[in-house]
Amino acid sequence: MTSQPLSDTEPASKRVRVRRMPERGRYDAASVHAILDAGYVCHVGFTLPDGQPMVIPIAYWREGEHLYIHGSSKSTMTQALAQGLPACVTVTHMDALVLARSAFHHSVNYRSVVALGRFTRIDDPAHKMQALEAFMERIAPGRWAEIRGPDAQEMKATMVLSMPLDEVSAKQRSGPPKDDEPDMALDCWAGLLPFASGFLPPEPDPLLRPGIAVPGYLSSLAKV
Amino acid sequence: MTSQPLSDTEPASKRVRVRRMPERGRYDAASVHAILDAGYVCHVGFTLPDGQPMVIPIAYWREGEHLYIHGSSKSTMTQALAQGLPACVTVTHMDALVLARSAFHHSVNYRSVVALGRFTRIDDPAHKMQALEAFMERIAPGRWAEIRGPDAQEMKATMVLSMPLDEVSAKQRSGPPKDDEPDMALDCWAGLLPFASGFLPPEPDPLLRPGIAVPGYLSSLAKV
Repeated sequence: MTSQPLSDTEPASKRVRVRRMPERGRYDAASVHAILDAGYVCHVGFTLPDGQPMVIPIAYWREGEHLYIHGSSKSTMTQALAQGLPACVTVTHMDALVLARSAFHHSVNYRSVVALGRFTRIDDPAHKMQALEAFMERIAPGRWAEIRGPDAQEMKATMVLSMPLDEVSAKQRSGPPKDDEPDMALDCWAGLLPFASGFLPPEPDPLLRPGIAVPGYLSSLAKV
Repeated sequence: MTSQPLSDTEPASKRVRVRRMPERGRYDAASVHAILDAGYVCHVGFTLPDGQPMVIPIAYWREGEHLYIHGSSKSTMTQALAQGLPACVTVTHMDALVLARSAFHHSVNYRSVVALGRFTRIDDPAHKMQALEAFMERIAPGRWAEIRGPDAQEMKATMVLSMPLDEVSAKQRSGPPKDDEPDMALDCWAGLLPFASGFLPPEPDPLLRPGIAVPGYLSSLAKV
C-alpha cells in the first residue's frame, strides 16, 4: 500500500487522464483534496464476479493521501473490497446548470474526483479506532469526547477500509456558458442556475433529554 | 431492450435486493421514480477491459421506465456503454447526518437508487431529438422553443443512450437516530443535521444582451 505524492500537472496513469475537455483536468493534491474534503458521500465502484459493476453510495473521509470508508463487516461491498478488488471512488459536487443559447452548449458546472485503487482493511485496533475518531472529528470536531465510543462487539461489527490516493484525477467546469459567436445575437436568456447544498439548523432527537443544548460545533456547520 | 413493470415488493434480481438493512429497501416504481426525478447527476459504473471499474458522474433524465444519458460521441464512457457492457447507474440524495449518542449508531439519512442494465445507443434521429428535448423540458419547461436546437453536426457529435429500469432498487433512511436503550441517559446531544440542496437565483451570462429578462421557468426553480 504505497502512496505517491501527486504530480501537479500529470496524471499517475492514463486511466485517470482527463481526455474529454482536458483543460478541465487537475492532478495536484490541493485540487483533489479540496473536492474530497467538501463532500460526505462518495460512490464506490467494484465489479461482481459475474462481471456486473456495482456503484454504491457510502460516507467517506480523507486523511493525508488516503481515503477511508467504513461499514458493516458483513456487507457485500465491504467484504468484496476487503479482498482487494480493483475499485473506483468518485466524489461529485454539482455547482450549476449552464444554460446556453444553443442546446449543444448546455452544460453543468461541477467538481469531481475519480480515484482508482484497491482498499485495504484496517485490522490494527488502535489504527481502526483512530480512523473512526478522525471521521467523527472531521464532521463534528469535539463530538468524539462526548459520545459513547464503540465497544468490542461494535468494533467487530464494523469494517474500516482505506485506499491510497495515488491514481486520481479531478475534473471541474466553472463559469458562464460558452456559445458559438453566431448564437450570441439570439433573444433567449443565457446564464447559470446555481445549485447549492449545505446543512440546515440541527433538529434535536424527539427523545433528547431536556436541558441538552445544541453543541457549538453543530451550530457553526449550518451554512445554508 | 425489454422493460418490465416494477414489482411493488420484490426485487427483479438478487443483485439489486437490499440485504443490509432490508427494511430500507423499496422496489416499487413510485419510490424509484421519485428519487430519480429529484436528481440531475447520476454516477455510471462500467468495467474497463483490464478489469478496472470506472465510476463517472453525468447528467441524466428519466422517461417512463428508461433512464437516459447523453455525451460526446467520442468519450471513453459513451463508446464503452454503446457496446452494451454491463452498467450500473446510481443516484443518491443525502438528506441529513444522523448524530446518535453512540459512535456506532451514527448514520446518514439518504435516498438512493441503484439500476443495473445495459445501455442502448439511440440512433433514430427523431427519437434522439425527442429525447434531447425531453431532457431540456425536464429541467426548464418551455426553454426548448427559445434556444437554437442542435444542427446536424452537433447531433453527430452527441450520443444519446438509454437503459431500461428493469433491475433496480431504492434504499433510504429517514428519521432520528436509534440508540441503544442504555445510551439514552447520556448527556450528549443527539439528532439530525439536515442537509439540503437546491437552486439559487439565476445568474445571467455577463455577455447576455440587454433587455432579456429571466424566464419564468427559471425563477420558479430557485427553491433554496
